[in-house]
Parts: sequence; C-alpha cells; structure tokens
Amino acid sequence: MQRYKITLEYDGTAYRGWQKSQSLPTIQGILEKAAEQLTQTRTEIYGAGRTDARVHATGQVAHLDVRENFTPHNILHGLNFYLKSEDIAVLHAEAVDDQFHARFQAKERHYCYKILNRTAPPTLQKKRAWWIPRPLDIHAMEQAAQILIGYHDLSSFRGKNCQASSPFRTIHKIFFCKDPALQEIHMHIQAPSFLYHQVRNIMGTLVLVGQGRWTNETFHAALLCKKRCAGGPQAPPYGLYLTRINYK
Amino acid sequence: MQRYKITLEYDGTAYRGWQKSQSLPTIQGILEKAAEQLTQTRTEIYGAGRTDARVHATGQVAHLDVRENFTPHNILHGLNFYLKSEDIAVLHAEAVDDQFHARFQAKERHYCYKILNRTAPPTLQKKRAWWIPRPLDIHAMEQAAQILIGYHDLSSFRGKNCQASSPFRTIHKIFFCKDPALQEIHMHIQAPSFLYHQVRNIMGTLVLVGQGRWTNETFHAALLCKKRCAGGPQAPPYGLYLTRINYK
Repeated sequence: MQRYKITLEYDGTAYRGWQKSQSLPTIQGILEKAAEQLTQTRTEIYGAGRTDARVHATGQVAHLDVRENFTPHNILHGLNFYLKSEDIAVLHAEAVDDQFHARFQAKERHYCYKILNRTAPPTLQKKRAWWIPRPLDIHAMEQAAQILIGYHDLSSFRGKNCQASSPFRTIHKIFFCKDPALQEIHMHIQAPSFLYHQVRNIMGTLVLVGQGRWTNETFHAALLCKKRCAGGPQAPPYGLYLTRINYK
Repeated sequence: MQRYKITLEYDGTAYRGWQKSQSLPTIQGILEKAAEQLTQTRTEIYGAGRTDARVHATGQVAHLDVRENFTPHNILHGLNFYLKSEDIAVLHAEAVDDQFHARFQAKERHYCYKILNRTAPPTLQKKRAWWIPRPLDIHAMEQAAQILIGYHDLSSFRGKNCQASSPFRTIHKIFFCKDPALQEIHMHIQAPSFLYHQVRNIMGTLVLVGQGRWTNETFHAALLCKKRCAGGPQAPPYGLYLTRINYK
C-alpha cells in the first residue's frame, strides 16, 4: 500500500463538519465514499483538523492508503471526479511514507476568521463571513489578542463538549488584516493545536473589544478567570476557515 | 417626490437577471416589490446595467422616486429589511435631483470577469467564477485585448439577440489581475456602454489566446471580420460582475 497526503478545500455550508457520522453528510464520510468508488476498496481517511458544521477549509490536510498502482495524478483527478457533485475538492495529492500521519504529525494549524464589517447585509459573502454592521476597531482587537500569545490555560474560550485532557494550549501568532474592497476583517491565528470551539470563542470575545464594550483589561481578566462563562459569545461557524497545516 | 440613487450588490445565482418579468424572479422585480412594501406605493426602479441571469453585481446603480418623508437612512435600511430573504443588498442610498437617471446618465460602466485557473474544481468559488483547469497566459490575453481599445465595430462579440441600433462601441480600458492566493484571473473592462453579451464573448475569445490556440493576429482578424461566428465561444454568466457605474 502507498500512503497519500491530500490537501483539501471545501465550502462547509452543506456539511455537518469533518467527522463521519452514520446518517449525516460529513466531509470525511463523503471523501471516504469517493475514495471507495475510486479504489474499489473500503478506505479510511484521516484529517488534520476536525472542522465543525458549516466551517470551511482552504488548506485542510488528510491522508489515505491506496494500492501501489495509483499515481498522485490518479488520486487527485479520481477523487475530484467522484466529488464532482459535492462542494469538496482535492487541491493537491502527494505520495508520502508510511510514517506520515495527517493529524498526529501536524506541527501547526492556521485558521482564518472572516467578518463582513459594513452596514449592508451580505449577498456574495452569505454563509462565508460573519456580518457585523457597525465598525470594529481592529487595532484594539489585535492588541488585546496579543495577551493570548504563548502557553495559557484557555478554559475561558473552551467549548462545552471539548474532549481535550488539558485546557492549556500554545498560540504562536494572531494578526488581523483588512480587505477594504470586500469590507472584510480577517483574523489569522496560528497554533500547534486548538481546543474545541477555541477560535470562534476567541473571535466572539474579541468582537466585544472591537465594539468598545470591553477594554484590553476586561479581555485579560476574562482569560485569567479560566471559566467559559467569563469569555464572550461564540462567533458563528460560517466565518471560519481552516487555511493551512504545517508539518516538519 | 424625491429621487434616490441606490448602489446595489447581488449574488445573481438565483435570479433571471436584472430586467423584470411577469413570472420569473429578477433583481428589478424583487427590488420593486421591496420598494412597494417600504413605501406602500407602486414604485419603479431603473437600473444602469441590465445584467443577465446568474451575473453578479458589486456596484450596480439604480434610481427610484419616493415621497419626501423618507431619508437616505430609511431607504437603505428599509429596502434591506424587505430584501432580507434575498441575495440582494443596498450598499448606499443618496438623494439626487430629478434630472438624475441611473441608465441614461451613466458615463462609464465597469465589469470584472473572474476565472478560477487551477487544476482542482471550485468549491467556495462555485457559481462565482469560470473554472479553467489549464494554465492561461494572462500577458498574451491582456496584450491581445488592447486591440479592442477605442471605437470599433464589435459585431464579432455581439450577442444574437442584441437590440442596440449600432454594433459600434468604445472601450476605454481592459486590464488583467492575478490573485495568487485565490488562483483567480480577473479581467477588468471599462466602457461607456456595452453590447448584449459583449464582455462574455470577449472573455470567451481571449481564453483561446490565453490557451495558445489563437495568436494576437487571429484575435485581431476575428475583430475585423465583424461577424459573431468569427469570435470565440461565450464565457458563462457566473464569472461576470458589474462592479461600478460612473456618472459625471
């Protein structure tokens, strides 16, 4: 058998997230079905990040094992052929050694959260960004976010059903960009791994800072409180994009 | 009565184009219904560009007349309220004098045509860009396009059902941009007015140049032939965006 690393893009709108389920359409489930049609064998697909329902990806990574007679070209075009009625595409396929594991060997995960920050409601960006009509102070948001850099107990931003054994996580980098043409604000966050709902809970809380309802100090105090009830509301899933997975 | 100029954005996917129709959902028809709900009066809406089915807009302009007791704020928020289940939004509303006419006073129209140029099929850009898997030479396309600048008989790029009295049109500017992150190629075209299907027919023909199937000379000869059959195929509607209307 040959192991393949595949890079994926998907519009998460129609799916119940990454993780397969008996009855619901999920990215993993649909990819495994496509791989089975292509290889004529039951095939398991392991992803680097388990994105939630309606969350998008432009750089998710997964791996699968197939018989040796496939080429990277076959994998890329074959999977895309069987995915043609879906909102999932394989961007890249590459043979890797047996030791490669998409999830356990991922060194860093990058997410981007998009906010449409303008008076008018979204049309082309519907289900692709969180609409916030009033202006946000992105400098205040970016400044407050710097408190999170490093190794912290992130219980204040941890989703209720989080199964991680520890609430501690390291964050490498958080920065904001503005796209004036699209009237969008993008938060980029890079870390080795994330707690359940962490990015959306951080984003929802930083919006309170951007609206001037919270100061830097309130935000810092929320972190130190180490209770989910101290954090702000959760941002909706459709603004979130898994953009990149780094390996060694 | 007070005349208002409104700037519009829409995702054209669900609509049969701008122009109202008795039985089909159109942008103009839906806007007139929203205006009627807001003003409690039958209201006509005149647009600058009559976009086709599935064509998008980020800067369409229209005008309407309403009773004097409305403010620009009422118009913007009121129309957006009644449009909330649609993929149409009012970006800006501004009181203008009675002489203003969205269509007849437009001095220049800007369109953008988006191509997704990568091996993998579209997911997030489905119905928002034309997918062309093989690499295009955008320098060759841009160079060939310069032949069109100025005043020309554009019969080779004129749609079958074009109702214009003359096939002559002036084109001010055509330029290409590449968005490496999105793997998109954008053609920007600016002109006082356009023939029916002109941008899509030009785009479809320039793609032949970008694929190396046509030279600059073939493209020039097609223009000089002044027959639609001499031009290349028509690009699909969902890559096209009406981006801006300039007035005096």
